[in-house]
Amino acid sequence: VVLDVGTGSGILAIWSAQAGARKVYAVEATNVAEHARELVRANGVADIVEVIQGTMEDIVLPEKVDVIISEWMGYYLLRESMFDSVICARDRWLNPGGVMYPSHARMWLAPIRSGLGDKKMEDFEIAMNDWNHFVEDTQAYYGVNMNALTKAYRAEHEKFYLKSSIWNNLHPNQLIGQPAVVKEMDCLTATVEEIREVRAQVTLPINQDRTRLAALAGWFDVHFRGSKQNPAVEEVELNTAPDENGGTHWGQQVFLMTPAPRVNEGDSINVSFSMVRSKENHRLMDMDITYELHEASGRKLPAVATKIFLE
Amino acid sequence: VVLDVGTGSGILAIWSAQAGARKVYAVEATNVAEHARELVRANGVADIVEVIQGTMEDIVLPEKVDVIISEWMGYYLLRESMFDSVICARDRWLNPGGVMYPSHARMWLAPIRSGLGDKKMEDFEIAMNDWNHFVEDTQAYYGVNMNALTKAYRAEHEKFYLKSSIWNNLHPNQLIGQPAVVKEMDCLTATVEEIREVRAQVTLPINQDRTRLAALAGWFDVHFRGSKQNPAVEEVELNTAPDENGGTHWGQQVFLMTPAPRVNEGDSINVSFSMVRSKENHRLMDMDITYELHEASGRKLPAVATKIFLE
Repeated sequence: VVLDVGTGSGILAIWSAQAGARKVYAVEATNVAEHARELVRANGVADIVEVIQGTMEDIVLPEKVDVIISEWMGYYLLRESMFDSVICARDRWLNPGGVMYPSHARMWLAPIRSGLGDKKMEDFEIAMNDWNHFVEDTQAYYGVNMNALTKAYRAEHEKFYLKSSIWNNLHPNQLIGQPAVVKEMDCLTATVEEIREVRAQVTLPINQDRTRLAALAGWFDVHFRGSKQNPAVEEVELNTAPDENGGTHWGQQVFLMTPAPRVNEGDSINVSFSMVRSKENHRLMDMDITYELHEASGRKLPAVATKIFLE
Repeated sequence: VVLDVGTGSGILAIWSAQAGARKVYAVEATNVAEHARELVRANGVADIVEVIQGTMEDIVLPEKVDVIISEWMGYYLLRESMFDSVICARDRWLNPGGVMYPSHARMWLAPIRSGLGDKKMEDFEIAMNDWNHFVEDTQAYYGVNMNALTKAYRAEHEKFYLKSSIWNNLHPNQLIGQPAVVKEMDCLTATVEEIREVRAQVTLPINQDRTRLAALAGWFDVHFRGSKQNPAVEEVELNTAPDENGGTHWGQQVFLMTPAPRVNEGDSINVSFSMVRSKENHRLMDMDITYELHEASGRKLPAVATKIFLE
């Protein structure tokens, strides 16, 4: 007996029925539920798959389930905060000994080189130039001094161009050092508290000479490993790391370091990382990244702190 | 004494003070109010302009006003439905004999030629082709038949590509006939009821030979004429009609006729037009346009009805 959390078109639920489930409960909050129902009928599994429109928090199932499946992953795993609903589903409806698919998840962080920082800085400067011309013209032709807003305008554009994380499909040759795991999670035991605030300290060794730390990049992988009691027959991994054979729609998230420090092989970066749910919109995340560059020579540079918005 | 409804940056309120107002109340619902306050101070009119954060429905002024100014116009005049707040301001706070600026507004409709219809039809066909390949691949490689959703997918894409009004800055030479007014409004007496549903019957004479009625186009003008009691010293007009010297940010709205009938000089089009506030989102509008082509020869073609969404 399977529960699919956020079934969307219903495709995972249909596959579950095709794979031999006795019963599949496919829960969807939006009106897409109607289309899922249609697709379930058209694929001849209406006797197995029951589409239920509602939120995980509100709906009631007639029985507990053995397996929970869900495609809940957002950009850098946690954006969208849909895993809350999966936790709710697990705590309300999973049988003792039941399994979660995916069963495990990891968030990665890595130092990269990239031209995106220069591009964004240029865009930012063009925007500020346009603003300055607007201020001059508004004074000259319309007799109103707009300069009082320049500071607020700059802050907003810094946030938009330089402090917002950027979606990108990176090539593996953009990695300039070792990736590290900043969060590891067992979906069977994870709590809302532990995903609301992710904090980590990691050391990222640089393995390229004469380059710049343009950014840190974040991605995730999830595993279909089952549980100790009920391991998967064959373990499957979904990995969204930079891949020369092409990426996924998740891509990677790029967190710009401006200015970008020069780094060399043998250097290492101590990163203190936090990612906290935004107070203004719980589906978005506020990140604080502080890094200290330790040069191979033994010199240690002052810590640099950056705020990044994962929007 | 002036009231500015939806002051935004405060620019109209500052101009009012510069033009000699004794007092200006500048009302703004959003946090932009803070920036308006800053701008008012920086421009030395803080003793005249008072920025009040709140909605017109909720706030209280210490006195009635002589003039209400507002930049409330959306695409095709009524999109965004901000004029409701202006009506509320007028009914609550305008002195008898007071004036509205703008004081009058008109909505226009005209027959045009345009390549946008062919472009959108092509985009629509590409989208449907992509969908059909997706259905084939999903059946072949993943064993799920998605064809049950083809009808709904087509309907959604027809709405998006063909039935949604399109922003465009038209050139006057794209007009193939006489524009007509579909709505005329005196801002001093207009009611919420009359803008919630705009209905009109107009005849549009075609004045170009061997062309196609690709679309109807809509735009508006507003006048700063004052009232009979208090006429403006100098009447000003803001016109968003197609203009060879360049357009405004409002542009015009293009309502595609698909298929586009052949028309000739001497033909005329009887249009029955309605524009009703959308039930799903009161800031958007649902339009029904039915036209009958009367050929110069005397032949009358069957009526064609189109639904258009102004989003």
